[in-house]
Amino acid sequence: MTSRTSLLYSLFMSNTNRQFKLVNRPTGLIAPDVLQLTESPIPVISDGQALARVKYLSIDPTMRIWMADIPQYMPPVQLGEVMRCLGLAEIIESRHPNYKKGDKISGFTGMQDYLLLSTSDKYPAQKLPSIPFLSDVNFLNLLGINGLTAYFGLVEVGKPQSGETLVVSAAAGATGSIVGQLGKIHGCRVVGIAGTDEKCKWIKDDLGFDAAINYKHADWKEQLAAATPKGVDINFENVGGEVMQAVLDRMNLHGRVVLCGLISGYTKQDPGLASFGQVLIKRLRVEGFIVLDYASRYMDAGQKLGMWKMTGKLKSREMIVKGLEKAPEAINMLFRGENTGKLVVEL
Amino acid sequence: MTSRTSLLYSLFMSNTNRQFKLVNRPTGLIAPDVLQLTESPIPVISDGQALARVKYLSIDPTMRIWMADIPQYMPPVQLGEVMRCLGLAEIIESRHPNYKKGDKISGFTGMQDYLLLSTSDKYPAQKLPSIPFLSDVNFLNLLGINGLTAYFGLVEVGKPQSGETLVVSAAAGATGSIVGQLGKIHGCRVVGIAGTDEKCKWIKDDLGFDAAINYKHADWKEQLAAATPKGVDINFENVGGEVMQAVLDRMNLHGRVVLCGLISGYTKQDPGLASFGQVLIKRLRVEGFIVLDYASRYMDAGQKLGMWKMTGKLKSREMIVKGLEKAPEAINMLFRGENTGKLVVEL
Repeated sequence: MTSRTSLLYSLFMSNTNRQFKLVNRPTGLIAPDVLQLTESPIPVISDGQALARVKYLSIDPTMRIWMADIPQYMPPVQLGEVMRCLGLAEIIESRHPNYKKGDKISGFTGMQDYLLLSTSDKYPAQKLPSIPFLSDVNFLNLLGINGLTAYFGLVEVGKPQSGETLVVSAAAGATGSIVGQLGKIHGCRVVGIAGTDEKCKWIKDDLGFDAAINYKHADWKEQLAAATPKGVDINFENVGGEVMQAVLDRMNLHGRVVLCGLISGYTKQDPGLASFGQVLIKRLRVEGFIVLDYASRYMDAGQKLGMWKMTGKLKSREMIVKGLEKAPEAINMLFRGENTGKLVVEL
Repeated sequence: MTSRTSLLYSLFMSNTNRQFKLVNRPTGLIAPDVLQLTESPIPVISDGQALARVKYLSIDPTMRIWMADIPQYMPPVQLGEVMRCLGLAEIIESRHPNYKKGDKISGFTGMQDYLLLSTSDKYPAQKLPSIPFLSDVNFLNLLGINGLTAYFGLVEVGKPQSGETLVVSAAAGATGSIVGQLGKIHGCRVVGIAGTDEKCKWIKDDLGFDAAINYKHADWKEQLAAATPKGVDINFENVGGEVMQAVLDRMNLHGRVVLCGLISGYTKQDPGLASFGQVLIKRLRVEGFIVLDYASRYMDAGQKLGMWKMTGKLKSREMIVKGLEKAPEAINMLFRGENTGKLVVEL
């Protein structure tokens, strides 16, 4: 879309609902023919419904999985459907018992300007509390999918003990950056792996990681060995492939792998290819993890995350891309490693 | 070694101790230059020592790992050392407080005719009880490494529940054949994967597996799907690679993988290469497992296994190769899938 078309859209935005629909399944990155921008009238609400204006889209690696027609943890998005996306929206009209005008909500907003909410929604949007020290975007990040993923993955699956060594991959990403800070809160030695020196500097100097390693340096595996003199007890794995393999090679007997993501493989045919040899020899426990399994306990975790944020123990950073029309390219930014911290699209 | 040399050896067997020493590390199968047959005088015992005549060698896939100079769960065998091997032996002379002449023992006998036991042994050999319904070889198989591996791996790591579906690979092997029977004892639907129709017939008709699939048939993955209509809850994995991948593809949400072996990869550079994608998406728990971790509880498991054997619930089969000189080739038989049940070398 040209910037002129974009301008036209913004002039008429109040009258139409722009939506990105999945029209072709991607083979690698999101090519221009994968998501089609369409326009339709803004929905009119009935009893039991509310209308919300989408403010922010949460751009997450898992969106690439939802686009693929493979067995997965939720049904894949069907061709012709509005692309699934987490986001934050504000209620502008309501005949729904749970929401009133002005409420802010988070949930599956979809890649669109306006969202219709119904009492029959399978995944009801959550009404956000108003908390002075939390910004709107914090609810997509620290208090949203990334904070909850980091919390349940590290604490419940990884079970960190004080003095253990934790290695986090995609450590400057939205989830990885929180995992590392939670590791420090739990008394671990924390080593992050990221793809630029700037990212490494951020997680080490600003977030307090003990070491940060840029896997694009030729000697990064030697650096990893030097940074983990007592081996690795917990691997919080977001990347897969060669990065995961190198961490497995450093793991201690009976170590734990929280398998949270395999972003290096999502755009490939054969995701997450690595050797199970180390898992056998070292009797590792590898657990696939998806935060949805912990939905009934989000509030509990949210309170802890909020407290750590308030007391300055958890920091976050957002990278904001402006304009719905930029959303498809924002997804590609994740796979090219162009984001530091949480990537959001502001509408 | 020619059969004439073999004959000469047997004539002089009482005077010398034949030993297979590791002299070169293998790259694929065990080539003739890997293990060298040497002769030395039969050891003379001192105070605190005993001499045993080795009767049977237990031929196990893990021997191939011990030969490789890679990080592993025990130190690799060093070049020039007698090749490590489990086995069964009989005490012929003793000044050791724990053994008397005529005692039968099992443990790390090494690939040799005679074994010197000392009070300082790191892994002391176990004295075998005399139980009417158990043969000597049963102590290497049902009551030995295979039975214990099957028991702790399936029961403690796999945690089988009645009505669940268990898939076992290398199902006609010494361990796999016991795992499947234990699965039946625990009320599971049990599907075995093996490499010949004869093996499949044995585990289905004689051992009571619900289904047996020959992975060398072109349509074996369709057969696996048909045999697991409710998906797979537990994978007891002995093989790795393509076989493991096909089972992972059939697994249910939150399924468990007992990673006990990766025999398809032991003779390759890149053992156990497979995709972690299904582990993530289905939130599987994959645990590397080695029976040595359960050594303190062998007696407890042995009593249960003995009871099941006595009551006819556990059957076993042995394939016996005669002559120490055949031991290196016996190891290769494992990797070519030529054994059904437990492979032992009788001396």
